[in-house]
Amino acid sequence: MAANLKISPLSAMSDFQDWARTVALDMERTLEILLPAANIAPIRLHDAMRYATLGGGKRVRPMLAFAAGLVTQADPERVKIVAAAVEIIHAYSLAHDDLPCMDNDVLRRGKPTCHVEFDEATALLAGDALQALAFELMANYRLADSSETQILMQQLFARACGSVGMAGGQAIDLANVGKQITLPELEFMHILKTGALIRAAVRLGAYCGKPLREAEMGQLDRYGKLVGLAFQVVDDILDCESNTEKLGKTAGKDQDANKPTYVSLMGLMPAKQFAAELLRDALDALGGFGENAARLRQLAAFIVQRQH
Amino acid sequence: MAANLKISPLSAMSDFQDWARTVALDMERTLEILLPAANIAPIRLHDAMRYATLGGGKRVRPMLAFAAGLVTQADPERVKIVAAAVEIIHAYSLAHDDLPCMDNDVLRRGKPTCHVEFDEATALLAGDALQALAFELMANYRLADSSETQILMQQLFARACGSVGMAGGQAIDLANVGKQITLPELEFMHILKTGALIRAAVRLGAYCGKPLREAEMGQLDRYGKLVGLAFQVVDDILDCESNTEKLGKTAGKDQDANKPTYVSLMGLMPAKQFAAELLRDALDALGGFGENAARLRQLAAFIVQRQH
Repeated sequence: MAANLKISPLSAMSDFQDWARTVALDMERTLEILLPAANIAPIRLHDAMRYATLGGGKRVRPMLAFAAGLVTQADPERVKIVAAAVEIIHAYSLAHDDLPCMDNDVLRRGKPTCHVEFDEATALLAGDALQALAFELMANYRLADSSETQILMQQLFARACGSVGMAGGQAIDLANVGKQITLPELEFMHILKTGALIRAAVRLGAYCGKPLREAEMGQLDRYGKLVGLAFQVVDDILDCESNTEKLGKTAGKDQDANKPTYVSLMGLMPAKQFAAELLRDALDALGGFGENAARLRQLAAFIVQRQH
Repeated sequence: MAANLKISPLSAMSDFQDWARTVALDMERTLEILLPAANIAPIRLHDAMRYATLGGGKRVRPMLAFAAGLVTQADPERVKIVAAAVEIIHAYSLAHDDLPCMDNDVLRRGKPTCHVEFDEATALLAGDALQALAFELMANYRLADSSETQILMQQLFARACGSVGMAGGQAIDLANVGKQITLPELEFMHILKTGALIRAAVRLGAYCGKPLREAEMGQLDRYGKLVGLAFQVVDDILDCESNTEKLGKTAGKDQDANKPTYVSLMGLMPAKQFAAELLRDALDALGGFGENAARLRQLAAFIVQRQH
C-alpha cells in the first residue's frame, strides 16, 4: 500500500518544510539550553562544545526522532532530550572526524572546523565531553514510562555509538581508503558509520511513547536502516555533483581522498536508482502505520531528494 | 577516632596485597570478557581497544570500587561491572591523553602508547569506542536493586567523565602548560582530571549494595575526593623522584612539559607532608564505618605510599 503513496516533490511540501523548520529551531533552542554555558569553567572547552554543536546542520536525526515519536504519540518533551542526545553524538563524531589524523577537513557547515577554530586538543576533548554529555542526558531525564524501558534505550543508544556502531564504521571507513572494496563491504561500513545512529534516532523517538509490538518496532527499525543507507548514497551523489558552497563542507573530498563511494562503485545513474529503491522500500516498511507515520514518509523523501 | 588508626607499612600488609592482587587479576579477566573479541570486525579497532585496556595498570579505580562495595555488602558481580566501566573510561582517557596533539607520549605501562602501536586515528577511535562501551556496560547489567538507583549511578558516572569532570580537567591541564597558576587552581584542575573518576569509582561501588544514609554517602564521597587528590600529589612526587623504568611511563615529563605540579608549586617536602595530611583526612572521613571500611583504609595508605 505504502509503495503506491504518491510522494509530492519537495517544493510542494510546504507543510513538511514548516514542520522541519520548526523542529530544527526547537532543536537549536533545546541544545542551547542543554549544552554547558560558555561562561562556566572550563570556558574554552564549553565554547568549543557549543561551537561544534550549535548553529548549523540539517538536524536530520532529531527530525527522525520527532517523526518516530509521532508514531507512538510520545511526549515531545521526552523526544527533545533523545533527539538532543543523538545530535550531540553526531556533533562529536564530526569534530573528531575532521581532525588532521582522520579526514583532515577545514570546513564544516560553512564554518571552520572545530580544530581550526580552536585547536586540535580542544576539538578532541570537546568531542570526548560531548559524548559524555549525551549519555548524561539519557540518564538525567525521564524518557519512558518505565525506568526499565529507559535503560533499554540507553543500551541501544550506547551500542549505536560504539565499536559495532558509529565508531566502528569510522574505523572501517579509514581502513578502506585507497582499497578496492565490494559493494557489500561498502554497505557494511555505512550501516555502521551513519546508519547506526540514524536507526537509533528512529527507535529512541518511538520508545519515548506508547509501547509498540515487537513486529512494529522491527518495521520502524527497517525503515531506519533503509533511510540511513539512502542518506549515505545521496551524500555520495551530492559529494560528486554539488559544490562546496552549496554543501557547506568540502565537495569532492571523497574522490580526492580516494575513498570508495556508491558513485565510484556503481556509477552515478545506478546510484540514483539505488537511492530511489531504498526510498520505496523505506515507505513500504511503514505500510502498517497509517497517518501517524506521515512525517516519517515525508522525511524519507526529503532525505533522498535533498540538494545539500 | 580513625585518625588514631595505626596504618601498617605496606610491606607488612600482606593480606592487603593478596586482596589487591586478586582484585587486579579478577578485573583483568572481567575486562577480557567484556571487551569486544579481537576476531570480531572491525578487528583493528577491537584490537586497539583491548591493547589500550588490558595487560597493565595498577587498577586503583577498580580496587576503590570493590573496597567501597564492601562497605555496603554489594554483590561482587555488580561491582565488577561498574569497576570495569570506570577502568575502561580511564583507559580511553589515557589513549587520548597520549596522542600527539595532547601529551604526545610514547610509553605507557611499559609498552608503546596506543597511537604508536597502531596509529593516531585508530587510537582516537579506540578511545571513542571505549567511552561508548563503558556507558553500554552501565546499561547492560543490573547494577542496583532498583532501576531508579541504576539511572542515578549512570548520571553521576557520565558527569564524572564529562566537561565538569575528567574531560574538563584535561582541558584545564592543557591550558595551564607554561602558566603561573596558584595552588587552588592546580587543585581545581586535579579534582576534575583524576579526582572526578576516582570519586565516581567509590560512589558507584557503594551504590551496588545496600542503600546508605545521605550523610554516609557524603562521608564516602569525601574520602574519594581526598584520596583522588592524594593520588595526584603522589603522582607528582613520583614523576619528580622516580625513573621511567620503575614508572612504566615517561618520568620527569611534567617538568619537561613545563606543567605546574604540587612539587613545583609547593616544593618536594611540603608536597610529601600534604600527601600525608590528605591520607589522615581520608581516614578520618571513614571514622563511622568500622571494619567494613578496612580495605578502603588500606587502599588510601597504599595510594599514598606506592612507589610507582
